[in-house]
Amino acid sequence: MAVEEAKPKAGLEDVVAATSSICYLDGTRGVLAYYGYDIHDLAKGATFEETCYLLWHGRLPNRAELGDLQSQLAAARPLAEPILRLMKQLPASDGMDTLRTLTSALGQYDPEVNDSSPQAQYRKAVRLTAQMGSIVATYGRLQAGAGPIQPDPALGHAANFLYMLKGDRPNALATRAFDIALTLHADHELNASTFAARVAAATLTDLYSAIVGAIGALKGPLHGGAPGPALDMVFEIGDASRAEAILRRKIESGEKLMGFGHRVYKVRDPRAEVLAAAAERMFTRGGDMSLYTLARSVEATAIRLLEEYKPGRRLQTNVEFYTALLLHGLGLDVPLFTPTFAISRVSGWIAHALEQRRANRIIRPQSEYTGPRNRTWSR
Amino acid sequence: MAVEEAKPKAGLEDVVAATSSICYLDGTRGVLAYYGYDIHDLAKGATFEETCYLLWHGRLPNRAELGDLQSQLAAARPLAEPILRLMKQLPASDGMDTLRTLTSALGQYDPEVNDSSPQAQYRKAVRLTAQMGSIVATYGRLQAGAGPIQPDPALGHAANFLYMLKGDRPNALATRAFDIALTLHADHELNASTFAARVAAATLTDLYSAIVGAIGALKGPLHGGAPGPALDMVFEIGDASRAEAILRRKIESGEKLMGFGHRVYKVRDPRAEVLAAAAERMFTRGGDMSLYTLARSVEATAIRLLEEYKPGRRLQTNVEFYTALLLHGLGLDVPLFTPTFAISRVSGWIAHALEQRRANRIIRPQSEYTGPRNRTWSR
Repeated sequence: MAVEEAKPKAGLEDVVAATSSICYLDGTRGVLAYYGYDIHDLAKGATFEETCYLLWHGRLPNRAELGDLQSQLAAARPLAEPILRLMKQLPASDGMDTLRTLTSALGQYDPEVNDSSPQAQYRKAVRLTAQMGSIVATYGRLQAGAGPIQPDPALGHAANFLYMLKGDRPNALATRAFDIALTLHADHELNASTFAARVAAATLTDLYSAIVGAIGALKGPLHGGAPGPALDMVFEIGDASRAEAILRRKIESGEKLMGFGHRVYKVRDPRAEVLAAAAERMFTRGGDMSLYTLARSVEATAIRLLEEYKPGRRLQTNVEFYTALLLHGLGLDVPLFTPTFAISRVSGWIAHALEQRRANRIIRPQSEYTGPRNRTWSR
Repeated sequence: MAVEEAKPKAGLEDVVAATSSICYLDGTRGVLAYYGYDIHDLAKGATFEETCYLLWHGRLPNRAELGDLQSQLAAARPLAEPILRLMKQLPASDGMDTLRTLTSALGQYDPEVNDSSPQAQYRKAVRLTAQMGSIVATYGRLQAGAGPIQPDPALGHAANFLYMLKGDRPNALATRAFDIALTLHADHELNASTFAARVAAATLTDLYSAIVGAIGALKGPLHGGAPGPALDMVFEIGDASRAEAILRRKIESGEKLMGFGHRVYKVRDPRAEVLAAAAERMFTRGGDMSLYTLARSVEATAIRLLEEYKPGRRLQTNVEFYTALLLHGLGLDVPLFTPTFAISRVSGWIAHALEQRRANRIIRPQSEYTGPRNRTWSR
């Protein structure tokens, strides 16, 4: 468009693109809350199912409502034979690619795909959340050379995922740690994949299409697609005594320290704190604290050196750092980290896609034209 | 975010979200140009392949360069057996769903999927454009109960699509009309699906992920997913003498007239004019002008009545109206209209995704929080 009045906002930074009741995020105070519930509070005991209910209804469930959602999710977890066959026949190039294609295929098998009544949308929300968990667990299982495991309807979402992935029912501490990880990753305001879901939803496309678009966006290394390097760095350092020398060398050679810095947080990511505490409990119970102790030491050294080399930038530990540590402690391989992020964030994607549709306007910005003008085509 | 200074821009209307050299769009003067070439000019004789080259390189090809692209597209057109098998085994719920899943699967079969070198991106651009055409033609063929037809490497993109769909090599006038339709739909600045592609691309995800997201967004009825109703209205009217009465009744009952109005155009969509002329030539050659004449009459009556009932709104014929007429004249069924839109727009999606990556910043806006605060979770 011939727009003169406004300069483009690169990356839409600081642009308010929507009103939303879902997620409150204050990057300068380090606050994150879903529908008014601080994540520190939810981390005390809320399960992922409670978080889903909260994100989809705007309030916590009572006991009966929670039981209903747990039953609905459990009933929706088994993968249909055609989906399992698809997973086996397609090249397992990347967990996110597999998840993207299979979630897209799920839409083709859903007779309610284009039904936008609130009831049908809710049923699709349950199906998407349940099935994506089973897809990622089964994918991880097949990648490890093992056979698929049927879901156990007696288990909650967190425990069932770990069971379908590893083949053993997890203990209470591992289940609780994973519930916390799923809850803390469930939503994060207008992050890129959630915004992609809203852009799609605003065309009134179906819910599967919006979620498939979000999966594709989450795959990007600038978003969810690079959770391994933070852990790699800890392993590379190997011993706390080597942290300072290695980190100095990295910073001085211009390398970005993975796991530190975030566009919206100018203080420590509140999720990092909660995940660190969950990881500490889990590793304490496991008996081997060496990796956890090393990670805390690497974090402290990194923060100190970042302030020394980049004073005032306030680069702080972000959510990746302790997520990676926690998922590693739960026995997940690095290639599963981003797909595991997706099975949590899908709850937020759904909440945002449905909120977008309730007060909808198609999302269609403009660009400032910087190209050539008045060229003439001729044969 | 705790944002106080800015009010949200519903649908990001009038927000400049990017600088771009690809598409110049002036909605008040009715101008649309790709890299400085007005679409009226391109419609005189440019093929879809020339348009692709222009969108991907920023300049028109010379004869040798055009020949190379034609050969590359032709070589990339045959569908691999696993993709054809997928199409047959998945429920054919909707052409856009099929296209979304199969394009996602193509990424899993592409060994260069995560290679972001300019050479690999260009090869993927060719593959995506060639394969999506073959997928949609073959899907239409199977839906009509016929068998798949192998592409003819001697044909250009437009003629080959019609051949793979209908089984007969199209005449020059039909080919030219379809080339014009493909060229005119190739790009349209930051429309919702293109913006979805840029949001995904800005995370540095792979090109397939960005295109799959765009396909999902294009499916939406507010974007590409409702091209049939404009034609249905013309058929419903059936005779020019009934146009005024039927249209008055529709407007007075609050029904939206399909094929009229567009957020960015306050004058007649320039594409409508070019497509109307192409349709006129095609129907003239076909010998039966009755549908074309009826459509022109319906258009004139609709414009007059819209000005009478909604003075000053300047609701004008949009691109859907004559696109539907043209595609119908080419023998395409209504369910194929949106997938056919996609096989053209993919050229623009690719151009925008690659442009986004060349000067990238992750697209991450903020929301104004309107939900509850300070709630307390307890068991």
